[in-house]
Amino acid sequence: MNSATRLEQQIAFIVEIDRLKTVLRQNYLADGSRRENTAEHSWHVSLMAMILSEHAADPVDSARVLELLLVHDLVEIDAGDTFAYDSVGEQTKTAREQAAAERIFGLLPAAQAERLRAAWDEYEASATPEARFALSLDRLMPMIHNSLTEGRAWQANGVTADQVRRRAESITQGAPALGALALKLIESAVDSGFLARSPSAQ
Amino acid sequence: MNSATRLEQQIAFIVEIDRLKTVLRQNYLADGSRRENTAEHSWHVSLMAMILSEHAADPVDSARVLELLLVHDLVEIDAGDTFAYDSVGEQTKTAREQAAAERIFGLLPAAQAERLRAAWDEYEASATPEARFALSLDRLMPMIHNSLTEGRAWQANGVTADQVRRRAESITQGAPALGALALKLIESAVDSGFLARSPSAQ
Repeated sequence: MNSATRLEQQIAFIVEIDRLKTVLRQNYLADGSRRENTAEHSWHVSLMAMILSEHAADPVDSARVLELLLVHDLVEIDAGDTFAYDSVGEQTKTAREQAAAERIFGLLPAAQAERLRAAWDEYEASATPEARFALSLDRLMPMIHNSLTEGRAWQANGVTADQVRRRAESITQGAPALGALALKLIESAVDSGFLARSPSAQ
Repeated sequence: MNSATRLEQQIAFIVEIDRLKTVLRQNYLADGSRRENTAEHSWHVSLMAMILSEHAADPVDSARVLELLLVHDLVEIDAGDTFAYDSVGEQTKTAREQAAAERIFGLLPAAQAERLRAAWDEYEASATPEARFALSLDRLMPMIHNSLTEGRAWQANGVTADQVRRRAESITQGAPALGALALKLIESAVDSGFLARSPSAQ
């Protein structure tokens, strides 16, 4: 492959991923002004990793954590954001995201496609210290956003404290101090009435 | 300082930087649907760095490039986005951004504040291969966005081809092949009538 074609493939990928800026997540910005998109979320958790790596459960290669977080949600361009507490969407999520990974990473020159795919696979498998720490940041930030917006995404989706506590378990696995913070946020939200203790009677 | 206080400072910084998602740049998304914000831009150029580092003029430490790009526009939370071709805003930009850096990085524990400030200073000074390569990505992407939106931000701001060519010089310095791409985009935009050859008569 000549070098012009290689650069053209790289630019095609870079243009394609612009679409991640139009994928909306459930949670709201800290100021409550609008829902967050997945591209700006990806920036936020990446910068969080630079600040919070001392709290990782195991020593982490910080550069690798950044790579995992920059690519971790790219599949949402095709697969959309599956809300954390959407048990129906969860059933088809893996198949949708695998197909998305094939197409999106496949825009790149082969070796780069494999490298980014490997980063996404590593994040998804959650089997390395870097992936577990990255996951803990990805799970913590929506809890902070909910805390700052009176549980807006939790309320809109009928989420209960037990469900959020289960999500917090993987924060504790990746970063114990951040898991403890998550549990404090959950208890405070319950006390303030922003997060339901249990499902409301139908 | 005890560890609770340290984590509180880190979280205060992480919450504060959420505001970068509300800072609007002049250029539009590739699909033209809305203007881009600085947080999602920061993610985009960071991921670009992962893909395009082979084109850097000099060998670069890829992890350092990511750090520079993740923090390079944080000062815009206070200082706003100064449009590339705004010669009036340019006169006060340095003072506004220095004050912003003091305040925003100053939210962090001291050693981390210094580390992020050093990354921002390195980016601004453009004196290392990493900073020059990062700058080339930051300057290339708005040209791509303009190319994809019929020069929308250029037209709205009366920007001419000579001005864009001068911006492209630093792309060439940081990444020659990307500078050549930028010049092709500029000539194509002029040929298509999306970018004015010279200032229109008043």
